[in-house]
Amino acid sequence: MIKSLKLILFITICFTQQLISQDEEAFFIKDIYEYTLSDGICDQWLSFLSDSIGGRLAGSQNALDAVDYTLNELKKIDIVDTVYKQECIVPKWERGEKEVVKIFYDNEEMELNALALGNSKGTGENGLTGEIIEVFGLDTLNMLGREKLEGKIVFFNRPMNPKRINTGYAYGEAVDQRVHGASRASLYGAKAVLVRSVTTQSDDLPHTGVQTYQEDVEPIPSLAISTNDANKLGVLLDSKKVMGYIRNTSQILPPTTSYNVVAEIRGQSKPDEIILVGGHLDSWDVGGGAHDDGSGCVHSMQVIHTLSNLNYKPERTLRCVLFMNEENGLGGALAYAKESNRKGEFHLAAIESDSGGFTPRGFTCTGEPSVLPKYLANLQKFDVFLDPYDLYLKPGGGGADINPLKSQKGLLIGFKPDGQRYFDFHHTEADVFKNVNVRELKLGAASITSLVYLIDQRGL
Amino acid sequence: MIKSLKLILFITICFTQQLISQDEEAFFIKDIYEYTLSDGICDQWLSFLSDSIGGRLAGSQNALDAVDYTLNELKKIDIVDTVYKQECIVPKWERGEKEVVKIFYDNEEMELNALALGNSKGTGENGLTGEIIEVFGLDTLNMLGREKLEGKIVFFNRPMNPKRINTGYAYGEAVDQRVHGASRASLYGAKAVLVRSVTTQSDDLPHTGVQTYQEDVEPIPSLAISTNDANKLGVLLDSKKVMGYIRNTSQILPPTTSYNVVAEIRGQSKPDEIILVGGHLDSWDVGGGAHDDGSGCVHSMQVIHTLSNLNYKPERTLRCVLFMNEENGLGGALAYAKESNRKGEFHLAAIESDSGGFTPRGFTCTGEPSVLPKYLANLQKFDVFLDPYDLYLKPGGGGADINPLKSQKGLLIGFKPDGQRYFDFHHTEADVFKNVNVRELKLGAASITSLVYLIDQRGL
Repeated sequence: MIKSLKLILFITICFTQQLISQDEEAFFIKDIYEYTLSDGICDQWLSFLSDSIGGRLAGSQNALDAVDYTLNELKKIDIVDTVYKQECIVPKWERGEKEVVKIFYDNEEMELNALALGNSKGTGENGLTGEIIEVFGLDTLNMLGREKLEGKIVFFNRPMNPKRINTGYAYGEAVDQRVHGASRASLYGAKAVLVRSVTTQSDDLPHTGVQTYQEDVEPIPSLAISTNDANKLGVLLDSKKVMGYIRNTSQILPPTTSYNVVAEIRGQSKPDEIILVGGHLDSWDVGGGAHDDGSGCVHSMQVIHTLSNLNYKPERTLRCVLFMNEENGLGGALAYAKESNRKGEFHLAAIESDSGGFTPRGFTCTGEPSVLPKYLANLQKFDVFLDPYDLYLKPGGGGADINPLKSQKGLLIGFKPDGQRYFDFHHTEADVFKNVNVRELKLGAASITSLVYLIDQRGL
Repeated sequence: MIKSLKLILFITICFTQQLISQDEEAFFIKDIYEYTLSDGICDQWLSFLSDSIGGRLAGSQNALDAVDYTLNELKKIDIVDTVYKQECIVPKWERGEKEVVKIFYDNEEMELNALALGNSKGTGENGLTGEIIEVFGLDTLNMLGREKLEGKIVFFNRPMNPKRINTGYAYGEAVDQRVHGASRASLYGAKAVLVRSVTTQSDDLPHTGVQTYQEDVEPIPSLAISTNDANKLGVLLDSKKVMGYIRNTSQILPPTTSYNVVAEIRGQSKPDEIILVGGHLDSWDVGGGAHDDGSGCVHSMQVIHTLSNLNYKPERTLRCVLFMNEENGLGGALAYAKESNRKGEFHLAAIESDSGGFTPRGFTCTGEPSVLPKYLANLQKFDVFLDPYDLYLKPGGGGADINPLKSQKGLLIGFKPDGQRYFDFHHTEADVFKNVNVRELKLGAASITSLVYLIDQRGL
């Protein structure tokens, strides 16, 4: 009888402690949201990064300015033990003068809104001229063959599929033209390529982005044109011969040195389990890289700013990492992972925010197949905390900068804000601070902070 | 043995049929999303309502133009059996000339961005002048009393609480100043009121909205000023005496006739169970009422347009209702419910979209206490269909226009898009089509169509 009473008492105490603990955690998450919404300064950081510094292509002076600025801002946060920059080698590419793309048909002439794609070579001072041939994907090239493509300007005009709800998937399906179009067309003797901008919007904004040359083919100039212009050009090509003139003075220069920025708070009880939160500091050279990925950087900085101001002392080691060169090479991510592996570190969790500063929807998780099922099962204990904020946790991608950490067998987590507007701004001159809603940005930071806190408290 | 085999066979057949049925429903919902995203025309309707017709205050010619336009557009949809307009009596209020609000302090003068609140009386041709007294809510008036308020301009400056994640709640907490401020201040002899705009943004846009006069007090002019101006004025009042000049020529005119627009598709097997989907056609006179509530109207029209183009024949009666006069009187909603009750109709479900054209998050449900628990329990069968679209179904508000149907004991459902940006545009000149993202708008329509389809197929 006494034994059973003791057991009941024991169970009651455990259960009560569990409840109190859950309550405390739930209240702390509420504090995280309230502090971030009312006193977070991620919007001020983002305004400086996007509007005062501007586009931050890896290898540029702006990117170095962003390194210095964020390093300095991170040093101001009380809780932080160490802040340093970590060297990496990055490619260097310069856009050169404003691109010119003109088309000629009947006796008409029309100028198109264009941007050279990242890593594209230039046309030379005089530009180049050729007949424009429209195709709807890489596979079509083979059907047309060298006979129809040699000496021509190949125009890739397959749109992003508007029926996809997940704009990220639609982007993934459409982006092969941009990345590989020039190399593939060059194989058939084309002299340049124009690519329809990868966006769900119909507008006049050209979208840049990375393109890569295969080693074994002659590199040819590769430029994006706006979707409105792509539509017009497509209609013309249905019935007319259209000639094109392209001029861009882009240059590929020798690789150079740049830096990741790392801020660390050493854990109290489990310092060897690292929780990383990061974004990428570089952006394209046009616009201000506000959504891509200034938002991810200031989200990550806000995580430790908020925890610091709530006087939180983490059990595990927290690291805010601002990676360099995600857009065109991953130089920073690879340098970080290499150094981390050399030191034998273990990242229990790495969270990347690289999908913009929009309203948070949740997190997607991935990892080594040998450990992922265990992590996914364990994550269910977080649902009770995240459900009230309408945040999901489900399998899916981590992030380009954290993926090299996969072999450490921790959990890789991608922050997922709502994606419907992301490709309206992505890689364009419109990706500036005024197109980020400050409340949505702060809610993103609060969501990530909450997940970092839960992982720190409860493990995985 | 044979009995058990028969039983197993029976269970297998039932289970297989259930699976096929579920699959068919899931595929049909996929069709709904794909059709709406690629071929929906709700954006064209919204562009016309917001930009070509513009603000549609009940009682105005614009509101009547919107009735004619939507009536005509609904007639073009194949599936629709009946389209008609339903008479209702609505208040008539006119803003008059551009409002003038100036403040004077030391030897300085500053003009504020202001809008008369709906139903406010005018100041007269010459305007009025008085000392400005700042208060932070209706309760403060009692503390100050007639001695401090008589002959003064009372300035309500309590902000929306930025810590609230749900902006709708924050709005609900802050809006009492706007609705009741004039009447309450008038009780203490104030001669006019200025009200801080009810928004989460810091900007120069004044937000109008309804205010009401108690019958037993002298009505005094009541105007909103922008949050930036409210902040400046608040700082000045901390240390200075500030005088104000207000001029508005708003007029309350006799009530007039306007109309709801109703389109009906008679159900095949259960015509007496009505599923209503609606929004309100009226808006404030400034801006174009794009989010509030042009979006809700075109969402509702898109529901039947999509179902028509997917050749769907509903089992229950579907009704698309565009209500008149939600903003300042609910004349249309009350007329609709009265007529429906007179006919002894039963609305199994009524869904209102009146929270903007943003990315859908889910639906909130309410109803008579005697029936609500049953409905909420039954709704769980929809989770399997809505979860893949990250849509929740949970208890919460229905909508101002459908609430009068509560006594019919059906389920009242509010469509909930993401609310973070809603109050950036709400009741301002910025509530125009270009501030609606077309993909977000269409996703809203697809979400509502999916729920209508599920209710029609499965009942509640």
